[in-house]
Amino acid sequence: MSKTVDVLARYLPILEWGRTYNRSILTSDLVAAIIVTIMLIPQSLAYALLAGLPPIVGLYASILPLVAYAIFGTSRTLAVGPVAVLSLMTASAAGAIAAPGSAEYLEAAITLAALSGIMLTVLGLLRLGFLANLLSHPVISGFITASGILIATSQLKHIIGVQAGGDNWPAMLSSLAASLDTTNPWTIAIGVPALVFLFWVRSGFKRTLMSAGVPPRPADIIAKAGPVIAVVLTILAAIGFNLGAKNVDLVGAIPSGLPPFAVPSTDVALIEKLWVPALLISIIGFVESVSVAQTLAAKRRQRILPDQELVGLGASNIASAFSGGYPVTGGFARSAVNFDAGARTPAAGAFTAGGIALASLFLTPLLASLPIATLAATIIVAVLSLVDLKTPAQLWNYSKADFAAHLATIVITLLAGVEMGVIAGVTVGLMLYLWRASRPHAAIVGRVPETEHFRNIERHSVFTVPHVLSIRIDESLTYLNARWLEEYVLERVADQPEVQHVILMASAVNEIDASGLESLEAIHHRLADAGIGLHLSEVKGPVMDRLKRTHFLDELNGRVFLSQNRAFRELADDGGHAAPASDDMARGLI
Amino acid sequence: MSKTVDVLARYLPILEWGRTYNRSILTSDLVAAIIVTIMLIPQSLAYALLAGLPPIVGLYASILPLVAYAIFGTSRTLAVGPVAVLSLMTASAAGAIAAPGSAEYLEAAITLAALSGIMLTVLGLLRLGFLANLLSHPVISGFITASGILIATSQLKHIIGVQAGGDNWPAMLSSLAASLDTTNPWTIAIGVPALVFLFWVRSGFKRTLMSAGVPPRPADIIAKAGPVIAVVLTILAAIGFNLGAKNVDLVGAIPSGLPPFAVPSTDVALIEKLWVPALLISIIGFVESVSVAQTLAAKRRQRILPDQELVGLGASNIASAFSGGYPVTGGFARSAVNFDAGARTPAAGAFTAGGIALASLFLTPLLASLPIATLAATIIVAVLSLVDLKTPAQLWNYSKADFAAHLATIVITLLAGVEMGVIAGVTVGLMLYLWRASRPHAAIVGRVPETEHFRNIERHSVFTVPHVLSIRIDESLTYLNARWLEEYVLERVADQPEVQHVILMASAVNEIDASGLESLEAIHHRLADAGIGLHLSEVKGPVMDRLKRTHFLDELNGRVFLSQNRAFRELADDGGHAAPASDDMARGLI
Repeated sequence: MSKTVDVLARYLPILEWGRTYNRSILTSDLVAAIIVTIMLIPQSLAYALLAGLPPIVGLYASILPLVAYAIFGTSRTLAVGPVAVLSLMTASAAGAIAAPGSAEYLEAAITLAALSGIMLTVLGLLRLGFLANLLSHPVISGFITASGILIATSQLKHIIGVQAGGDNWPAMLSSLAASLDTTNPWTIAIGVPALVFLFWVRSGFKRTLMSAGVPPRPADIIAKAGPVIAVVLTILAAIGFNLGAKNVDLVGAIPSGLPPFAVPSTDVALIEKLWVPALLISIIGFVESVSVAQTLAAKRRQRILPDQELVGLGASNIASAFSGGYPVTGGFARSAVNFDAGARTPAAGAFTAGGIALASLFLTPLLASLPIATLAATIIVAVLSLVDLKTPAQLWNYSKADFAAHLATIVITLLAGVEMGVIAGVTVGLMLYLWRASRPHAAIVGRVPETEHFRNIERHSVFTVPHVLSIRIDESLTYLNARWLEEYVLERVADQPEVQHVILMASAVNEIDASGLESLEAIHHRLADAGIGLHLSEVKGPVMDRLKRTHFLDELNGRVFLSQNRAFRELADDGGHAAPASDDMARGLI
Repeated sequence: MSKTVDVLARYLPILEWGRTYNRSILTSDLVAAIIVTIMLIPQSLAYALLAGLPPIVGLYASILPLVAYAIFGTSRTLAVGPVAVLSLMTASAAGAIAAPGSAEYLEAAITLAALSGIMLTVLGLLRLGFLANLLSHPVISGFITASGILIATSQLKHIIGVQAGGDNWPAMLSSLAASLDTTNPWTIAIGVPALVFLFWVRSGFKRTLMSAGVPPRPADIIAKAGPVIAVVLTILAAIGFNLGAKNVDLVGAIPSGLPPFAVPSTDVALIEKLWVPALLISIIGFVESVSVAQTLAAKRRQRILPDQELVGLGASNIASAFSGGYPVTGGFARSAVNFDAGARTPAAGAFTAGGIALASLFLTPLLASLPIATLAATIIVAVLSLVDLKTPAQLWNYSKADFAAHLATIVITLLAGVEMGVIAGVTVGLMLYLWRASRPHAAIVGRVPETEHFRNIERHSVFTVPHVLSIRIDESLTYLNARWLEEYVLERVADQPEVQHVILMASAVNEIDASGLESLEAIHHRLADAGIGLHLSEVKGPVMDRLKRTHFLDELNGRVFLSQNRAFRELADDGGHAAPASDDMARGLI
């Protein structure tokens, strides 16, 4: 019985933490849930706006997904829901299908969540979480920076009250510039102060609170509730000055009530158009979420299981789709607030869901007069903190290849949009990796005098003899570098016509795949044709076990030595060439 | 002056071998050219048939491409021209555009050659030859086996004189089975004997010649001219029995003359449809050609330059396109004949081109009565020798991952065609590689008693202390395994609560990319939070140089030791824990 629970607990983490749940944990979770709920309401509305969806969809996406994650997720403190980058990606994908505001647009967003949920769940069940490794740190940071710039630029129109468009950065900027003569002074009068206030809340408010005697952690949490203050103040301003009549865009009437039951589209033509964006949304969302979850788990010495996280996020997105929401993932800001506010189990997330549900039942009439400019200011302040301008210089300094992947991601994302940006970053990173993997490290080695150690002849004063060539291979032999190995060995032999024996020192070879084996056979064949012996030394146990299953060792014209030292000693003696006859023959001999 | 020639000779290898050309080399090259010409004529006609093109196109593709390769190629003995696999791929790509026999179909084939030529040249100039490494040996051999089965099956209809179609193997077989009641007995009377004769020529004819006193090499070359005998005999039979009137398909009237000047299409819509097949044709052709060229070069201790080979094959394909041909590459059979017949420079290829040009000027009227069944028999015999049924068992035995890539390639090629087959093979191979690369090898190590060596605690009896954890990392730290490293180190620390110092032994780390560095920083940050020191040992020179350009070493709470032995000695003494107090503390101590 208990064993069954253990196995089940792997796929249903709720069974594990649920067993030890008590009143003290409940209190902690409830307090955290109240704080996160207050923070989430304006954020959810804002991100739905960014995604081109009705604001209420942001609330819908913050209810059932949290409950689903509480059941299936492995992080104790991750808070899932709409996030900036996925909202931008949703806008990009759904915008290619239909015009924002149309029923088709909403259907596309819901279908994206469903596809992404299915993909994440399948990747998790197949334990393919490693695919997220394809997104290197430089690619992710480049993508986040460029997305931040794109998002902030896209929201500027709401701050100054103009109509503008564009689906890449230059187009956005020029559309914005062309619209400058139609600005609405009333919108600016709301938007600019909201923007300044929110920037100040993020930077100076916490310090003000602390100097007023509030302890650091509560001060931090209160500062993060700054957007709520902006929301309340601008609603009051909109009502007081009747801004709706002055062409200031307001959120407008929101239907009160719980999320509807929605059904994602099963239209094959639509799915064909959406599967690539859905896959990218899945992977970007997973990487963002796992990074946050791992950081928070490490602080409390807890663990998360990446493959189960895929299932948890998959369940969240499926829940989002069936309740009329759009793609969600674990967000950094909300998870940090949840953690700081003392959440101890995923139940805090479920309680937050309850809070948002109450809000969507009772608070929506109050939000009708909220200016869109306030939400835009919330978004701009949130995303500009993601823009990281120090990384490019650091990468340039440390690794040109990583810099190239970073820059390619930024430039392509700004010029060709989020999907192409991610694809370009992954492609450039992978190409550079494969390029390096196809040119692995190897060295000709000789014996360090009076020791049994062998070192690179180019860096050390070592002893060699001209009829024995010792090559140390510093990587596993795989299909990516097999052809290189053939060229390397045969060229070294061509450079040294006296060679009678080649020793491949395999101390760093962890694996030889079938292509590597074929290359070894080809090398052996060509050396044997030329009357040269091929020998191996220091072959690792598992590699040797596999070689024994082939005919390679039976056909080998040379020997397999346990140590490079013994191989060199015996072969250097062979043919009476052991005593070096000239400087030329005893390179570096002391 | 001479220096300029040296530089030019890199891109125009003709400048190198042309300088030492003399009468003796000329004689060798001329003899080889005559032999290869005789062999190439039926082969070129047959492969054009396989590609769904008029037979004369096969001759066109065997003239200018050979001259272009003679100028730009680096192999002394490679013979370029139409080959079986590229003909099949051409049929697949052009067949998706138009019906065989139409002008659009021919235009698509010419455009494929042009696109492939441009791609190969660009890849060569950018030195991207390493991309061919993505095709592992198991993928290539699976692809060739499956292509051989597809090609042989597609030609059976010509042997029995029926109409049949199908663009995958099951469809071909069922279409063939459905047509069995319409067989033409006259066609069978030509096709089956031709097939049997050609199989016998390939296997038994050489032995017969040798027992008649012909030396092995000439016997081999004569045996390879067997198709010419079949062509002559079946032409005579077709004329003698007036087979054309008995519904036996004949080649029919071929326009005599030199290749026309053709212009590839610049239609964007056509290029959009053809660029993926053209890329696959380029890479498959390059891999086939380079393997052949390397094998032959090694036999005479010559070298080829893979990146310049790309340029040579690119020039050949561009030449093919502008002379009304289709994609070409270096073929195995023809190159081997060229080599065995004594060709010494690429001039032999140019002379062969002259021979084929003469044939297309004067021999084509004689070919009008050639039965298609003869050409089909030539193709079947040639490709069945490519089918390799031993490899799957060998791969299963040696490497399950390689077997999976091999099998995926065969199955997908048979069921979904050549393009999907190659893509599936490359994808499966790359996924399995990335999966393994994301789980690199590492081990907890301890000191071998009375030595300075450190070995895996799971395999050796070694000395450790509980407050020092030594982890040897056996691979470079890259973005693919960076996340794994974090998990591995933090889990090992979680398993051993007494740990005060972690030593990462980096003797096998050739590189740390930006993601690897970030993971090291994350590990350091989390260990430091827990009051644990992070130390490095045996960091290689180039890796250390790069680390010094970052803040990592300044912020590190531990030290960097030159040797693991010193690191362990000093840290094991730290805190008075050096003397092991119990069995538990001194694992494996002797």
